[in-house]
Amino acid sequence: MDPSRIEYALERIRAALAAGQIQAAIESLRELHPADRAEAFTDLEDDEVAALLPELSSRTTARLLTELGDREAVDLAETLDTDRLAEALDRMEPDEAADVLGDLDPRRAAEVVAEMQAAKGVVPLLGFPDNTAGGRMTTSFIAFPETITAAGAIDKLRQAEPGSDTPYYLYVQDRAGRLVGVVGVRDLLVASPEAAVASFMKSEVKSVRTRDDQEAVARLMSRYGLGAIPVVDDRDVMQGVISHDDLLDVIQQEATEDLYRLANLPSSDLSIDSPLATSVRRRLPWLYVNAITALFASWVIGNFQTLLAQVAVLAVFQSVVAGMGGNTATQSLTLMVRAIALGDMESRKAKRTVLKEGLTGLLHGVLVGSVVGLGVWLWKRNLALGAILAVAIVGNMLVAGVVGALVPITLRSLKLDPALASSVIVTTFTDSIGFALFLGLGSLFLPHLR
Amino acid sequence: MDPSRIEYALERIRAALAAGQIQAAIESLRELHPADRAEAFTDLEDDEVAALLPELSSRTTARLLTELGDREAVDLAETLDTDRLAEALDRMEPDEAADVLGDLDPRRAAEVVAEMQAAKGVVPLLGFPDNTAGGRMTTSFIAFPETITAAGAIDKLRQAEPGSDTPYYLYVQDRAGRLVGVVGVRDLLVASPEAAVASFMKSEVKSVRTRDDQEAVARLMSRYGLGAIPVVDDRDVMQGVISHDDLLDVIQQEATEDLYRLANLPSSDLSIDSPLATSVRRRLPWLYVNAITALFASWVIGNFQTLLAQVAVLAVFQSVVAGMGGNTATQSLTLMVRAIALGDMESRKAKRTVLKEGLTGLLHGVLVGSVVGLGVWLWKRNLALGAILAVAIVGNMLVAGVVGALVPITLRSLKLDPALASSVIVTTFTDSIGFALFLGLGSLFLPHLR
Repeated sequence: MDPSRIEYALERIRAALAAGQIQAAIESLRELHPADRAEAFTDLEDDEVAALLPELSSRTTARLLTELGDREAVDLAETLDTDRLAEALDRMEPDEAADVLGDLDPRRAAEVVAEMQAAKGVVPLLGFPDNTAGGRMTTSFIAFPETITAAGAIDKLRQAEPGSDTPYYLYVQDRAGRLVGVVGVRDLLVASPEAAVASFMKSEVKSVRTRDDQEAVARLMSRYGLGAIPVVDDRDVMQGVISHDDLLDVIQQEATEDLYRLANLPSSDLSIDSPLATSVRRRLPWLYVNAITALFASWVIGNFQTLLAQVAVLAVFQSVVAGMGGNTATQSLTLMVRAIALGDMESRKAKRTVLKEGLTGLLHGVLVGSVVGLGVWLWKRNLALGAILAVAIVGNMLVAGVVGALVPITLRSLKLDPALASSVIVTTFTDSIGFALFLGLGSLFLPHLR
Repeated sequence: MDPSRIEYALERIRAALAAGQIQAAIESLRELHPADRAEAFTDLEDDEVAALLPELSSRTTARLLTELGDREAVDLAETLDTDRLAEALDRMEPDEAADVLGDLDPRRAAEVVAEMQAAKGVVPLLGFPDNTAGGRMTTSFIAFPETITAAGAIDKLRQAEPGSDTPYYLYVQDRAGRLVGVVGVRDLLVASPEAAVASFMKSEVKSVRTRDDQEAVARLMSRYGLGAIPVVDDRDVMQGVISHDDLLDVIQQEATEDLYRLANLPSSDLSIDSPLATSVRRRLPWLYVNAITALFASWVIGNFQTLLAQVAVLAVFQSVVAGMGGNTATQSLTLMVRAIALGDMESRKAKRTVLKEGLTGLLHGVLVGSVVGLGVWLWKRNLALGAILAVAIVGNMLVAGVVGALVPITLRSLKLDPALASSVIVTTFTDSIGFALFLGLGSLFLPHLR
């Protein structure tokens, strides 16, 4: 957040390292906020890291692993020896430790887990896929039996080690471990000390199951404004908690994913900082897919090659028709994908929405097509050219509105990500139909064009 | 979240209204969670709302106004008479009430404020723009003098009315009202009762100023994993608090905005649910802008009309060159816009990133251009056509990578939104340069093409 502070710390760290003063370098690093420290750390050269790393305390290493991005954290974990990594993971929140372990080579992860003291909290988390509630939750939470009194709960709270992921809600379980209620820390303060927690807890608790999709969990939390949500197994036994900063990660990741997918970029772990080789390799497949659809559009145009040789001015304007369709479709598509992501697109609204987007496309087509057609008529002094351009734009924008809304709905009903491949499918439609419509009309009215 | 429950409640509400049983209808509405209630409410017809509204308690009306979207909340506020609206606003969180008032006609807002009992907390909020820390904060927070003891603070906490926006942190002020520290509710429990709060508070508090941009605030909160952040004025006097659910709104809104802007959609308050007339009117301007850039590309092509009449096959493939450039540029642009939004694009990285994206574009150009060129050579049995297609794709994808990364950086350095108009500018480049390059090469090698 404060680039100059990080730059300044980096300078001091480098100066200290150059002078062989490792402890002074560590001191400069430690003076930064953990989040800033992680950023400074990623800016160090490999040999600088190699000099610092053996001297860092397990607490500082744990903080670094927590604050670094997934990829950087794994890189760091791989350079640590098993003992030191296990020590650092022991000091991390179980969910953060599990994230690091999950990204390691499985054999190495098993070796590290064998050395860990706090393996008990971490191991159950390793089985859950990253993008589920189980994969996002932490197993460090505070739960009371329902028979405890307010005073007893406060006592227990005093004894519990304070963790950054735990402060908002306290959960109440029955004897079988099932979640039966929730109380706020503040409710405990306000309650009379001898009152049983069960008498003032809120017993309607919203919870999710371990295998629920992270996106659904995020939608639930944000809809009901929850600071944390408990995660239960199939028998309602509490397994963990997802807190508001996990929620934030999910929401950022899902937003990135939608944005990327609409731009034909693969998964959300790609970024502008990805190494060149990774970037070239991972972005390439979609470019090939796009090339194939572009060649398909060329094949459509190729059917009119004789016409184009006769009336070359058609080649001048064909892309306007395809382009305007593409723009309209992108608008509809984006509105639709966002509405689905925000949970605002109930199935009952689907049909109405597709019709509305079609109508919008038609009206936009009339408004844009007439102006463009008129302009081109005056520019090229060719009424027929202007007229078929206008009609083709109207037709293509109508199709574009319908297709732009229909494709994400269809993908969702096939249980696919609505944003996945939407752009390519939609563009293929609007390009092909745009070219076919304009050049087809050109063939029909050929005598008027020459 | 639970569409069937909402559907079921709607059925019962409608049945009750049809039978003239207003109270039964209200009962069915009240059984829903406030967030679901708001959704059910928006699905009611105007005459159903008119029947229900006069009978709702001010508490239920307040809840509705809180949970409804901005536009729906104002629609509802406008149908209520001044007294009833003032009563409902009195029962809302100050920031939520201010949001409703801010969207009303100013004269009407003033009338309502005059009737309100809790106007004191709301009025200061009316002066802040919506997208600043001041516009997002609530004035309802709990602060203690630094001299108070833990026991005294707990007492004060017991007396304070519990509000949904206040539970996470408690703030400590000096005699001038300046923010000097923060304590968690749990720290109060753990501290010995007679200890002064100043002795165990955390005195390094991250805070923001009232006029700070909401996006910067969101970045700070998510970087440091804060559940709430205090807002201070220029003299460090505490004015309010922004909590994690406000943060969530900001992040969703900013993500929507970037997604929309890359798709040439105006501001983020447009949605797939916007009324047809609004949708048509507000989406139209960008379509006209796109039409102008498409006509500019047509003008570029028009310079080669004689060539196209001679070698019509060029018209078949010209869009491939423009399209591949467009795709590459969209990838670079999107990665860049997202990196800027997530705060990962420090200025010192800018030059290196543009170079890297240019290099990526070049490599992608070689990889895609060679395959497409080879394919077209074999397809059309025309080596020269395949060769100039390949070269034009390489050139245009190189330009696309550079321009895609450069445009958002340039817009940001001009203090403009990096996503605003980026797509249009970039497409104009890749289209024009793509067509000019391919057709220009076609002119040069005309003898080999025929």
